[in-house]
Amino acid sequence: MIFRDRHSRLMELLDRQNIDAVFLAPSSDLAYITGLAMKPDSRLKGALLCADGRGFFLCPSLYRGEAEGLGEDLPIAEWSDRDGFREAFQAGLKRLGLGGGQRTIAFSRGIEAGDMLEAMAGLEARCVSGLELLAPLRSVKSRDEQEKMRFASRMNDAMMEAACRYIRPGISEADIIRFVENFHESHGGNPRVPGVATGVNTAKPHYPRDNNRVLETNDIVRIDSGGWYDGYSHDMTRTFFVGKPTDEQRAVYELVLEAQSAAEASAEIGSIPRDLDGMARGIIADAGYGDAFTHRLGHGIGMDGHEAPYISEANAVPLVEGNCFSIEPGVYLKGRFGVRIENLLMLAHGGKEVLNHFPKRLIAL
Amino acid sequence: MIFRDRHSRLMELLDRQNIDAVFLAPSSDLAYITGLAMKPDSRLKGALLCADGRGFFLCPSLYRGEAEGLGEDLPIAEWSDRDGFREAFQAGLKRLGLGGGQRTIAFSRGIEAGDMLEAMAGLEARCVSGLELLAPLRSVKSRDEQEKMRFASRMNDAMMEAACRYIRPGISEADIIRFVENFHESHGGNPRVPGVATGVNTAKPHYPRDNNRVLETNDIVRIDSGGWYDGYSHDMTRTFFVGKPTDEQRAVYELVLEAQSAAEASAEIGSIPRDLDGMARGIIADAGYGDAFTHRLGHGIGMDGHEAPYISEANAVPLVEGNCFSIEPGVYLKGRFGVRIENLLMLAHGGKEVLNHFPKRLIAL
Repeated sequence: MIFRDRHSRLMELLDRQNIDAVFLAPSSDLAYITGLAMKPDSRLKGALLCADGRGFFLCPSLYRGEAEGLGEDLPIAEWSDRDGFREAFQAGLKRLGLGGGQRTIAFSRGIEAGDMLEAMAGLEARCVSGLELLAPLRSVKSRDEQEKMRFASRMNDAMMEAACRYIRPGISEADIIRFVENFHESHGGNPRVPGVATGVNTAKPHYPRDNNRVLETNDIVRIDSGGWYDGYSHDMTRTFFVGKPTDEQRAVYELVLEAQSAAEASAEIGSIPRDLDGMARGIIADAGYGDAFTHRLGHGIGMDGHEAPYISEANAVPLVEGNCFSIEPGVYLKGRFGVRIENLLMLAHGGKEVLNHFPKRLIAL
Repeated sequence: MIFRDRHSRLMELLDRQNIDAVFLAPSSDLAYITGLAMKPDSRLKGALLCADGRGFFLCPSLYRGEAEGLGEDLPIAEWSDRDGFREAFQAGLKRLGLGGGQRTIAFSRGIEAGDMLEAMAGLEARCVSGLELLAPLRSVKSRDEQEKMRFASRMNDAMMEAACRYIRPGISEADIIRFVENFHESHGGNPRVPGVATGVNTAKPHYPRDNNRVLETNDIVRIDSGGWYDGYSHDMTRTFFVGKPTDEQRAVYELVLEAQSAAEASAEIGSIPRDLDGMARGIIADAGYGDAFTHRLGHGIGMDGHEAPYISEANAVPLVEGNCFSIEPGVYLKGRFGVRIENLLMLAHGGKEVLNHFPKRLIAL
């Protein structure tokens, strides 16, 4: 199956950008256009879609069954382990008149650089990145997608409430990870490994899952919980105190909360992501912690956990209705502690909707 | 840290193939050379290694901590969310004299085609696939690696024995999947989702995990169990009968067993993969089931579940000591049932070692 409406908007996009065709390897882009939930693996596969509506589906023999639903919409270019994919791919391109030097082909996510180089070897067509090609479509959520985003975040709110009842001195980071995963799985979700850090580990914004520190009596814990319900993502971060925060911990928490709340309150249809990032960054810098806010303010979210629109100093494109994104400033004090607060926002019904309802105020458990 | 010995063999390889540098994005290739177990995500990172021993590590600011161990061996080319990776990557290349048209850069697994096109935009260097570049190193297992391969397969044998005691009418495919995963996890392994098919679902060689069929009284079940222990893979498939097989099921089983055993017995140092594939395929074709054996005979295995050497009609390179690979013929009868039997083999100590010891004979549970 191909989603007709999305496919025709993709064709318009290609036409507008003077791209003759896009190759959608297994990824959320492929799923968005065709409904196919394949995973990339060592056998290359995907849909080659032209601006004029023609195309083909490159398919290893072994996956023939999974691509059968496409049959009516796209001819299958099948390849066997014996022959490899290059011949089938290039024959498909040539049938569509796409081998030559005047042609431009974009490559979306899910195809290794090496496979692309192999697939195009000897052809003169120009290759360009298609990683952000579908962003103008995917970053504008339909009503149905908006409803799925709301539901996923409601489930994440419920998890965070339950986690508050669970967290206590004596449990480990691994215990909390298991708790978060179990909550989502037992409610029908598909969690990513949650980012759980406690104590000094909160000082790293991107804390690897290789520690198993145990919560102490007066301690700090950060939970960054994301994943999927029904194919759409949630993502929320809270920083809790177990027992009593120090004066500095309290001050940093209130600062991050102020920065998060200011950007969240300002975000609306027409906002410039760079300005939102600058607003939060300014508040944190004015308090003397500018160097400790080491990442962008936020990211778009939808079928992928990270997608357009990015809320960063690099993005000057105004937000539009249907955008969904995180606002998540953080302050990380090396070797000591860190605080991050993250909510998801959606621009819908002509206004703004905060998708997370779990409180942001300082909570000491 | 860089593994000196592996790094110097990689430099020789580059030199021999007239490649000036290779970019190792997060993948088993990167782990093999540097020990870094990073995962690919939306922020590009990896080691650029030159034939002359110089290089750099492209690193998003957020991952700085994880790359610190490399500091002595490779300078870090850091990039921020604000600036993106292109400038840092291209500055690194230019410092090494690698931007120009006379240069060749290979790209190994873990970098999206789109990111590579973005990273190289405007440069004249020739880009080539490096997906199989490290194969001559990685496909020859050291003694230490051989020991890890043996251990992983011993654990998989133990799982299959336990599964025989578990499988009975009334349990579902999902139950068996959970059983296999739990066994490996509780023994310290890191399983991939096992391929479990029952009844008519065994007719698909690559059966997606979207069914939950329940085992009946006289039934057939296939378990394809793979994953990792201590970073090295196991992979074994068995097809069992629950109750009584039909005469045709029994005949097909014995045929697949004959093909598997013949190829397994023939494989030795110097064997040609194409010949092994042809031998098994010939036995199956002679019995009239040629069209039902729809995939290659086997694949190499090590840090990755699928890697060189591939045991297929397309591979005419003789096997060498240290190679480790599967032999796994199958017969799949559309809409009815299928049989596959898979063992891992290792060419070691001048001879051949079958890594799986779980019986291959027909087992009716």
